[in-house]
Amino acid sequence: MSKINGIGSIVLRTVALIASFVAVVVMCTAHDTAQVFNLKFEAKFSNSPSFKYFVIAYGVVCCYSLAIILLPTKSLFWRFILILDTVMTLLLTSSFSAAMAIAYVGKKGNSHAGWLPICGQVPKFCDQSTAALVVGFVTVIVYFVLLVYSLHVALGPFYSVNS
Amino acid sequence: MSKINGIGSIVLRTVALIASFVAVVVMCTAHDTAQVFNLKFEAKFSNSPSFKYFVIAYGVVCCYSLAIILLPTKSLFWRFILILDTVMTLLLTSSFSAAMAIAYVGKKGNSHAGWLPICGQVPKFCDQSTAALVVGFVTVIVYFVLLVYSLHVALGPFYSVNS
Repeated sequence: MSKINGIGSIVLRTVALIASFVAVVVMCTAHDTAQVFNLKFEAKFSNSPSFKYFVIAYGVVCCYSLAIILLPTKSLFWRFILILDTVMTLLLTSSFSAAMAIAYVGKKGNSHAGWLPICGQVPKFCDQSTAALVVGFVTVIVYFVLLVYSLHVALGPFYSVNS
Repeated sequence: MSKINGIGSIVLRTVALIASFVAVVVMCTAHDTAQVFNLKFEAKFSNSPSFKYFVIAYGVVCCYSLAIILLPTKSLFWRFILILDTVMTLLLTSSFSAAMAIAYVGKKGNSHAGWLPICGQVPKFCDQSTAALVVGFVTVIVYFVLLVYSLHVALGPFYSVNS
């Protein structure tokens, strides 16, 4: 078994699998309702395209992490593992950043655009989506470490060639 | 000169340098004012933390691209080029996604959260920030191609080792 699919990689992928799964579950179950001026207001992840993107992207990464853990060591897929890991890290970063930008407006609002914060009305939804974002950030960090680790393993001989 | 800092890489870095520079200038100069109910409303990039992040991140990538183009071929920095390129691609993806999420709310609003679209009031700002995002997306694509190209150059021998 070569180093790139060794124990270090499996541990990181397992942590990423669990973290991405938790992020999806916590975000999907975040729910709260509020009554503002006789208007019932329901907060859930599917109300925001960015939060939907977060759930889909983390779901994809969760399935991918599981697939790679279960991948036979002789599989031809290992040839593309660095490219695939890079794409997954970019997908995580992109969806996390989009969800974070919307969560920030939800928390602080934007007075210039006239967008009011909603966390005062739906604190339960806000707290739970913040928790999903924290776990989401852990997933991003784990995938980044995995990518740097894989690059280090793969490029050991390359460093000296290129200097 | 090794392939990773060869002509293909220099061309891609030059395109990324120009694109990121254009994205920063177009976003920074985007400006419009509107009068709503006797209230003067001024739209500029610095009103949104996500747009500020976009400008800073693209500015950093612009400077980095120039520095790498001018980097002597014997420099020790080439040893870390893949890690640095990965970090820059992640930075671009993150800031582009955050700005895109806010631009989408600016264009379409979010009826569930009570956030109204602002593009009807400040169309000039909206059009110009959309243009900045389009050029920003080109920069992301160019850096992704550069990363895949560098991985391909660097990992040629590795593919056969790992299969």
